[in-house]
Amino acid sequence: MLARVEERLAALLAQERAYWSEQNPDALELVDCVGAMVASGGKRLRPAFCIAAYLAAGGDPESEVAVDAAAALELMHTSALLHDDVLDESELRRGGPTAHVLHATLHRERDWHGDARHYGQSVAMLAGNLAIVYAERLLAHCPPAARSVWGELSTELMVGQFLDVRAAARFQPDIPLARWIALFKSGRYTVYRPLAVGAMLAGGSPELLTPFEEYGLALGEAFQLRDDLLDAFGDTDITGKPARLDFKQHKMTLLMSFALQDEPEVKALVGDDLPNTDPEELHALLLKTGMKDRVESVIEERLKVANDAVSAALPAEWAAELHAMARAAAYREK
Amino acid sequence: MLARVEERLAALLAQERAYWSEQNPDALELVDCVGAMVASGGKRLRPAFCIAAYLAAGGDPESEVAVDAAAALELMHTSALLHDDVLDESELRRGGPTAHVLHATLHRERDWHGDARHYGQSVAMLAGNLAIVYAERLLAHCPPAARSVWGELSTELMVGQFLDVRAAARFQPDIPLARWIALFKSGRYTVYRPLAVGAMLAGGSPELLTPFEEYGLALGEAFQLRDDLLDAFGDTDITGKPARLDFKQHKMTLLMSFALQDEPEVKALVGDDLPNTDPEELHALLLKTGMKDRVESVIEERLKVANDAVSAALPAEWAAELHAMARAAAYREK
Repeated sequence: MLARVEERLAALLAQERAYWSEQNPDALELVDCVGAMVASGGKRLRPAFCIAAYLAAGGDPESEVAVDAAAALELMHTSALLHDDVLDESELRRGGPTAHVLHATLHRERDWHGDARHYGQSVAMLAGNLAIVYAERLLAHCPPAARSVWGELSTELMVGQFLDVRAAARFQPDIPLARWIALFKSGRYTVYRPLAVGAMLAGGSPELLTPFEEYGLALGEAFQLRDDLLDAFGDTDITGKPARLDFKQHKMTLLMSFALQDEPEVKALVGDDLPNTDPEELHALLLKTGMKDRVESVIEERLKVANDAVSAALPAEWAAELHAMARAAAYREK
Repeated sequence: MLARVEERLAALLAQERAYWSEQNPDALELVDCVGAMVASGGKRLRPAFCIAAYLAAGGDPESEVAVDAAAALELMHTSALLHDDVLDESELRRGGPTAHVLHATLHRERDWHGDARHYGQSVAMLAGNLAIVYAERLLAHCPPAARSVWGELSTELMVGQFLDVRAAARFQPDIPLARWIALFKSGRYTVYRPLAVGAMLAGGSPELLTPFEEYGLALGEAFQLRDDLLDAFGDTDITGKPARLDFKQHKMTLLMSFALQDEPEVKALVGDDLPNTDPEELHALLLKTGMKDRVESVIEERLKVANDAVSAALPAEWAAELHAMARAAAYREK
């Protein structure tokens, strides 16, 4: 089914390219922003959770509607990445220049009018919008119960992004808020809601949602902590992202919330000014104070909670599948 | 039915406010960006075209699905306005500060971290996304034929915005392109597609789409020319927008395309540098060369084409209604 999700994504984008080649070839620059992000090798986590829950709940493997919904989840995520890169002013994504950087460069090379940077951001914003529209088009035959979950997912995505941006600007160490945002952005958006979309598409019992929610929220926290660790300690050659972007963007990550609250040395180094804190010093201090190891053990504990939640609720083979997916997500290297 | 569209919009936003007050009150700042734009007194053109076509095609006036779809059109437009103001870096909309200006101001007043302007733009972008999500949520029960039209409408909106931004950056007088963009943005997005959504919701014959398309494209061109005239010659106290923003944003509007192609004096004044052209001189020259009057007569001619298209295809009372709507749109003062 995941192979068919890839085919569905490729077919939609090929059809759109063909259509706009006829209508107005200039439009291909926008379509290709979406296409390039889709083709740039994401982990396809959300489609995988959706399809796993769909099959675990007894869904028909031949269904086109489930394949469409899983592809729609990936397109919604494509949009989130395009927009995220504008919000974060990131230069690099998956080892290449981000869409807004690429189009700012085109603007300069073509000697066009106006501000190149603003032009690049405008293109990336509209490409993100187009990806949302493509996602919605794939949901044309999605039944109301799954659509309703989709509506919650997409609302939470936008609100989660906003709270993240707002918390970064406000910049107060606030563990409950950082945790809430992590649960929302990763737990609900990446894990629980895709599982719920799949379960509802299979006509699964609403009782299945409770263990999926427990699994999703626990794994989401582990996932977010891994994200923070990769940003702080990861290998940029593997992650394809600039090192310590969260520090530079003064994001109040879950990791930084823990560190600022619990470690007086970190608090003393950072003070009220994370953006001007030397990333190398901070990096060393997080290692020295044992913060990295402490977060690793939280990840392990959260993973156990996630696994226990589905062990009782699902057939053994599907519980094992979700355990493997949880491990892969929590211990990923990029 | 249009009164029920207003109620539907208000109910959705009230329900979202109640939900987020419980979940995380900080999120209200984002919800309220959408709410403020919806409440700021738009013309509700798209819902009106949708409902008119729906009733003209014999739709049931009690239908909730048609009311929902009309409300969704307004929310999609709310999104377009929020994003447009970021793209155009507009300061003023409907007589008040734009969302990105408002949130940049809040950022400064709260003495937050990072760049206030970028923060404001981020909030407006996410608020626009949230409005798209709300629109889609209202389409949960929309049947496939109307959803398919909706997919075309929203794709064309994003592509049209992109081509507009691209043409402004490229800045070549190009009447075919300017006309194509005008037909896309106004003809299809504002008039034809909303009519088509309404007709499909009523289970109307696909044959009805041809006269609606003719009406939409002709009226769309008139509508866009009026937009350009209001920008160039309108009264800012009435329009609620800054005067001659298109000039300042060096937009290659339909009006400017005509003028640069046909009037050597305009070409001589502007040269290759519309942004640095004195708006007052340009304004005077467009009057002196008769450009304003010429565009007025194009509007009149387009209006006649639009009206003729629906006269033959619709019952007399609904043809008259669409004639009145066309006149109101083509001769509006804001």
